[in-house]
Amino acid sequence: MEKQIITISREFGSGGRLIGKKLAEELDLPYYDKNLLDQIAKENGYSVEMMEEDEMRARNSFLYSLTNAFGSGGYGGDTQSLNEKFFMAQFDYITKLAESGDGGVIIGRCADYVLRNFDNVTNIFVYADEESKIARATEAYGVSAENIRKTRNDVIKARANYYKYHTGKKWGEATNYHLCIDSGKLEIDDIVKLIIEYVNLRTK
Amino acid sequence: MEKQIITISREFGSGGRLIGKKLAEELDLPYYDKNLLDQIAKENGYSVEMMEEDEMRARNSFLYSLTNAFGSGGYGGDTQSLNEKFFMAQFDYITKLAESGDGGVIIGRCADYVLRNFDNVTNIFVYADEESKIARATEAYGVSAENIRKTRNDVIKARANYYKYHTGKKWGEATNYHLCIDSGKLEIDDIVKLIIEYVNLRTK
Repeated sequence: MEKQIITISREFGSGGRLIGKKLAEELDLPYYDKNLLDQIAKENGYSVEMMEEDEMRARNSFLYSLTNAFGSGGYGGDTQSLNEKFFMAQFDYITKLAESGDGGVIIGRCADYVLRNFDNVTNIFVYADEESKIARATEAYGVSAENIRKTRNDVIKARANYYKYHTGKKWGEATNYHLCIDSGKLEIDDIVKLIIEYVNLRTK
Repeated sequence: MEKQIITISREFGSGGRLIGKKLAEELDLPYYDKNLLDQIAKENGYSVEMMEEDEMRARNSFLYSLTNAFGSGGYGGDTQSLNEKFFMAQFDYITKLAESGDGGVIIGRCADYVLRNFDNVTNIFVYADEESKIARATEAYGVSAENIRKTRNDVIKARANYYKYHTGKKWGEATNYHLCIDSGKLEIDDIVKLIIEYVNLRTK
């Protein structure tokens, strides 16, 4: 059987990253998270710090917010050119990764959109109620609930802006994904089992 | 264990109704679909035809469309009063149903929103790719793919308008539900199993 690719989009604090890691282990697939940026940077002669900084700046920019409020983005403007370069490098890298046939679990990076025409891709969206997300993030990052609350709204907005700008679609809209799970009352291991079951059913 | 309530919101042709029926059978729960309207009509002295006609008219109305485009609805205007009366009757009926402790599977009717403060409720959203939906609807309703195509866009728009108007939320946004499933490549029976597993995990 062709090796599977699973993309994970996730709300901050929903446990999406842990779920992705565990999925990769269980299915014996390569795991792509921050290491994706490392590899793209290396291949293209960029620095990861530069890519991350530029992305953060762009995600919170007025142009991105406008896009999210009023319509889809695009690659017309000069101000976004560095960011677009980085996005296109990611786009190419993720596409090549899918074409390689080695499968993988990819966290974020609009990979669901990039790989929308591949058959062996299952797109997952993980989210949760406020209380669960704050509890999970507090535990994972070791900072106060208050700080998490402040940060997470920015992160959510930034992710939604980024997604809308590059894909023209609304982040978190169910039909962009194959399976969307509220992780709030579930154990990570149970969610992983459920996702594997869904992937097996889709590809049987 | 407290009896569960499962609400099913679904795209036209996604198999949501079949899934709901099967779920009710498997879990030995009452099933509420059109029969919900019958019971509400009976209790309140309305006729089902009147309720259905009014709902269809309202769903496609300019006011509903405006609400969907620009913001949440409300109960201010005179023109919607009959429709609001019907909606409130449904609201009360669904709430009483949840309070009864008998559990149930409810198709549509914004039940996910009505029951948002109940603990024993799991909200499911079922959708699928275009091709699968048209194939399923063609089979289920015995009409041509072309007619299905024409009808379904109206149905989708009407459902989204109705949901937005009465709940202020966007229909199909993942976080409104606990589990969202693309039914496209799956058998109804497999989806039912997956949903039962998720409900069991949430409530274990």
